[in-house]
Amino acid sequence: MSDKDIRNSYEESAKRMSGESQTIASKLKSTNDPNEHNDLHENIKVDYQNSPEFSDMEEVHRWQREHVKQEQGKDGYPLNVIIDPAMREMYKVVNDAGLTNVFDRFSQQQPIQCKFCIEGLSCQLCANGPCRISEKVPRGTCGVDAHTMVARNFMYRHVTIGTSANIFHCHQAARTLKAAGQHPESGLKIRDAEKLKKYADMAGLDANKPIEKLAIEFADWVMDDIHSPYHIPSKTVEAFAPTKRKELWRQLGLFPGGGYSEVAYAQTRCMTNFTSDPVEFLLNSVRLGIANEYQGLFLLDIIQEILMGTQEIAQKKQNMGLLKESMINVVTNGHMPLLAHVAIDLASTDEWQQKAKAAGAEGIQILGHVCEGQQLINYEGTHNQKGYGGQEGEWLSQEYLLATGVIDLFMFDYNCTVATMPIFAKRFGTKLLSTHPVIKLQGTETLDFIPEKMKEQAEKALDKAIEAFKQRKAENRKTYIPNYVSDCTVGFSTESIRKALGGSFDPLIEQIANGNIRGIATIVGCTTARYGQGGSNIFKITQGLIKNNILVLSGGCTSSVMQYTGLTNPKAADECGEGLKTVCKSLGIPPVLSYGACVDIGKMTHTAKELADALNVDTNKLPLVIGAPEYLEQKAVADACTAVALGWLVHVAPVPSITGSDVVVKTLTETTETLGLGKVVVEMDAEKTVQIYVDHIEKKRKELGLN
Amino acid sequence: MSDKDIRNSYEESAKRMSGESQTIASKLKSTNDPNEHNDLHENIKVDYQNSPEFSDMEEVHRWQREHVKQEQGKDGYPLNVIIDPAMREMYKVVNDAGLTNVFDRFSQQQPIQCKFCIEGLSCQLCANGPCRISEKVPRGTCGVDAHTMVARNFMYRHVTIGTSANIFHCHQAARTLKAAGQHPESGLKIRDAEKLKKYADMAGLDANKPIEKLAIEFADWVMDDIHSPYHIPSKTVEAFAPTKRKELWRQLGLFPGGGYSEVAYAQTRCMTNFTSDPVEFLLNSVRLGIANEYQGLFLLDIIQEILMGTQEIAQKKQNMGLLKESMINVVTNGHMPLLAHVAIDLASTDEWQQKAKAAGAEGIQILGHVCEGQQLINYEGTHNQKGYGGQEGEWLSQEYLLATGVIDLFMFDYNCTVATMPIFAKRFGTKLLSTHPVIKLQGTETLDFIPEKMKEQAEKALDKAIEAFKQRKAENRKTYIPNYVSDCTVGFSTESIRKALGGSFDPLIEQIANGNIRGIATIVGCTTARYGQGGSNIFKITQGLIKNNILVLSGGCTSSVMQYTGLTNPKAADECGEGLKTVCKSLGIPPVLSYGACVDIGKMTHTAKELADALNVDTNKLPLVIGAPEYLEQKAVADACTAVALGWLVHVAPVPSITGSDVVVKTLTETTETLGLGKVVVEMDAEKTVQIYVDHIEKKRKELGLN
Repeated sequence: MSDKDIRNSYEESAKRMSGESQTIASKLKSTNDPNEHNDLHENIKVDYQNSPEFSDMEEVHRWQREHVKQEQGKDGYPLNVIIDPAMREMYKVVNDAGLTNVFDRFSQQQPIQCKFCIEGLSCQLCANGPCRISEKVPRGTCGVDAHTMVARNFMYRHVTIGTSANIFHCHQAARTLKAAGQHPESGLKIRDAEKLKKYADMAGLDANKPIEKLAIEFADWVMDDIHSPYHIPSKTVEAFAPTKRKELWRQLGLFPGGGYSEVAYAQTRCMTNFTSDPVEFLLNSVRLGIANEYQGLFLLDIIQEILMGTQEIAQKKQNMGLLKESMINVVTNGHMPLLAHVAIDLASTDEWQQKAKAAGAEGIQILGHVCEGQQLINYEGTHNQKGYGGQEGEWLSQEYLLATGVIDLFMFDYNCTVATMPIFAKRFGTKLLSTHPVIKLQGTETLDFIPEKMKEQAEKALDKAIEAFKQRKAENRKTYIPNYVSDCTVGFSTESIRKALGGSFDPLIEQIANGNIRGIATIVGCTTARYGQGGSNIFKITQGLIKNNILVLSGGCTSSVMQYTGLTNPKAADECGEGLKTVCKSLGIPPVLSYGACVDIGKMTHTAKELADALNVDTNKLPLVIGAPEYLEQKAVADACTAVALGWLVHVAPVPSITGSDVVVKTLTETTETLGLGKVVVEMDAEKTVQIYVDHIEKKRKELGLN
Repeated sequence: MSDKDIRNSYEESAKRMSGESQTIASKLKSTNDPNEHNDLHENIKVDYQNSPEFSDMEEVHRWQREHVKQEQGKDGYPLNVIIDPAMREMYKVVNDAGLTNVFDRFSQQQPIQCKFCIEGLSCQLCANGPCRISEKVPRGTCGVDAHTMVARNFMYRHVTIGTSANIFHCHQAARTLKAAGQHPESGLKIRDAEKLKKYADMAGLDANKPIEKLAIEFADWVMDDIHSPYHIPSKTVEAFAPTKRKELWRQLGLFPGGGYSEVAYAQTRCMTNFTSDPVEFLLNSVRLGIANEYQGLFLLDIIQEILMGTQEIAQKKQNMGLLKESMINVVTNGHMPLLAHVAIDLASTDEWQQKAKAAGAEGIQILGHVCEGQQLINYEGTHNQKGYGGQEGEWLSQEYLLATGVIDLFMFDYNCTVATMPIFAKRFGTKLLSTHPVIKLQGTETLDFIPEKMKEQAEKALDKAIEAFKQRKAENRKTYIPNYVSDCTVGFSTESIRKALGGSFDPLIEQIANGNIRGIATIVGCTTARYGQGGSNIFKITQGLIKNNILVLSGGCTSSVMQYTGLTNPKAADECGEGLKTVCKSLGIPPVLSYGACVDIGKMTHTAKELADALNVDTNKLPLVIGAPEYLEQKAVADACTAVALGWLVHVAPVPSITGSDVVVKTLTETTETLGLGKVVVEMDAEKTVQIYVDHIEKKRKELGLN
């Protein structure tokens, strides 16, 4: 682009702002008015005549195991990465119809991807920019070099957003717990009073109070800490973090205060002409990672279990084959299962099943999707209610899910609802409903978040589902359900594992000590649409790990991948190395223990802390690797910062946008470890990734004196 | 870029992360180690032999008035936009020496600027990206369209950061007020006890308490509100916002809660696969603008005046000619003048002047720079201390300022300190010192922020200045001071204007009513390095406004521009239209009333509220325009959102990066006004800008029934 082009571009922009010329956007058909989506998609012909690709799940699993050995580049994409059999069928339907969808959009973006953005060397913060840094032009207009630009982008684009989101989630959970204490009529229950007492006691509260009062006090204690100033050391971190870690964090200036104030502090530093020391941004990110854990993941898990019951190991089912053409199908998506679990309670009553029948349906069922679903499947492990239909898939499959035509209500409350849902809802007759104003889609109804009226809100949602079903029947719409269902073991957590082991971690520690289990890897986070990913990288790496006798914990969209590939089925013990196989067979467990959602990483850190305590070592001494082989978004980046704070090796793929600075790369992949923190490793190749995990675990075993 | 290129780029990036190949950055010389800056700049020969361009300020002003009529494009840049005579001379020195500097960096960026980034159509949030939207590729991988991408970029890149920063500033001011109440030995004083009582009373506190106790209580009240949950309506907004505005904000769902919680809420919504309704992001931005004002600008101004004294109209001096080769020159930069005003108190004592003399200097003087300086010049209007040396310039001039070689200590506390200061400090022998850990530069010393030990911290700073002076003399370094000094009137505020008018706004309202003054324009915010800007757009527009009998209020770097162009000198009355000239002459005031810093916009909204109250109308009825003709950064964008909330027309230039969406453009430039809010107008041409202001003011006059 020449100087003249740039000037022209600005002048064009100025004219456009004054309404003197047409914008690119106005030439695009899509706008804020959902009715205009009609033109794009409503009349597109959908052909449901694809014949099923596989005859049964056994055939699927054989194909998956053969298939992922192949090269997974651009050729044959995306069917060379989509290994969920249901998503494969529905992708073909959607793609044949020419409907927009996530894999095709990824392909369309490739020719125009920007190399500066890939490396973190592009900045759009101020009106002197946008700026790009290159060898010839080593500084932005303001004067920042590559290191500052990359590190600042990393913190403000990813870490502050992810930390905000996890703490915000915990904040809403605490509001809900308070409502449960204050409003027995809300439909909310305190299902694990012992857990409430235990953590309230650790918080220094008087745990002998009536349980409703204690719920209110504990919720207030959590919310107060989240809302404290950044310069007041966090009470939640003080109460729940490992002692040796707290000492280190104090020495390094990483002990956080209140999380929201911390976020504002960090955001302030990212202003133009403000902090320009790249290492500061990275250490600040680790500090945010600590708030992210103790004011976010860890406590939101505790609070959700207090409300919904602590999970137990159980056998459940997953995938689109659980949908029923003749039933009212409600899918609940997101990450806050609070309203949804009240809706399941309701839908499980005869009253609501009768209402469904009165509308001409066989009944009404609520199915979970994405992380919300993983939490509901755990909840159901302890309740077995007839209003619950099982788990659907990972975030990539939501457009394909709606394309079945049988989803009557798609309700959602937090992240992982894609912007194209209104298009699919319109085309396939699904009612969309946001259940928290924090998420709003174009032209889509939103319920207020009023935890003290959860029951009333859930009733509203179910009424809408019944109406949508009636409409579906009245219009006699075509539908198609891919006939695949996975059997899977769910419900692993610190408590349920300890219980399965007879009340103590000693048997597990013994298996680690004797080498049957070499170590533990968490395979957590999202799936991406990238070449070589789409779930298949997660599958490949996990296969390699269990062959090497590494026990795997999953959380997030990775749990869905483990489910549709059969790795959470006890039969997968046969795919393990000899040591792990022996352990799995003797306990009747799969080699991949599903903890549930991405936010259940909070439970994994809890298990790790208990293991470290049992071994009397600091958390960074454990033979443990944290892996996010297909991380997607900002919460995942904040979670990686948590893991670095706790002293762990964190593997991530794809490549984060930090490669434009060797200072940033070196700090995150080497220097942090020398400070007693963890470090990040990036590797795209699955085989090499497995070897990195194995080497790290063997190194840690050696340091612990284990063979 | 082909698909293969993209894959290669990712593979290259992956290798780089594993340390297998060199990064771009490692080929660049600059790193986090400031010693490496030597190689870049230390041995560069600086030639101080430029002869002065102008013989005196009168000649400067003649040249400025002639010069800005010319076309100011790329040809002749940047000398065709730099109208500060001191900066012109020093630019030539720095440019001749081949040293990096802001104007040359702007030129270097032009050929590589990205059109997608300019229009807001580039997203780097998630690992499926980066994505760009074009006519052919209308959605990002996640599915967002142009409108959502542009609106989300607007909120998370600009508004949440700016709001965080202004509220954070207020938070630090409140901590300082609390320390003043608790620690009389801190060097802090409560200089305007009446103001404290007035606002504490409005806050509902008992104002009859001992003043120290009241300071603590009021500070706690402010900090509590900043740290409240987003779902609890803000007490500060309730106490201080105009009644009719509050009603409107409640109707529109814009009444905010605690600011930090609001920022986290907004950040959460910006996550990948979260909110995708563009209008939501824009309304959320307006809501943040309200918190930005009442928990930020407005209260930080009140608190700083309680501590430093409420400003009074006074005659002062500005520009580099105030530097003295034989004195210890301390420049204090940023936006929080709290430590600096204690340092001035100290430097004004015989003890510290003697210390300076003992080091071989004639004395020690502290000069303000940027917005911090504008607040100190107002402070000095009420104190006249010998340790104060006057005001330097706007943010663009800081590299050129250090190049004089006579700045012994450059201390800074907040935004507007550029990343290249360590290079200039090293080359020209300046000691750099951050006085708040929120800002850290590469290899630069930072003092903790301990308000209760302000005096001790200020002593530390002055000791460092003395050491640096000794070093300068020992090395016998060459120096050069451009010999320009502007006379200027400073210290305008609601109170000082009312006082000058004899205790009431009635005389001003009468002048507006009789048409001598047609209306008021605030010309506030930053300066940019852009073609046609660099201070000259501010100057051109202001000239046009006063010719049209529009009274101008300035705040921010615009105040420095008004000062070095003579527009804050009462002599500038001669450049006004007849009506305004009569008013200025009769009162002995200039046509541009300098309120001080960019954060003093809080005082302008206060004046506007008092005017609206006196007229018994809502704020949006005033014949008022808010202008930021060279806005640069995130606080300015948050401030624009404040102005929209208050119902005002806001002119901004350069073009914000929102032109990729007609929905976003239309919402901000049209729709918000239909809701009773203000709206944004973008115009790059100075003449057209003046006409827009005039038209809007005449329209508002008509609505008020004025001719």
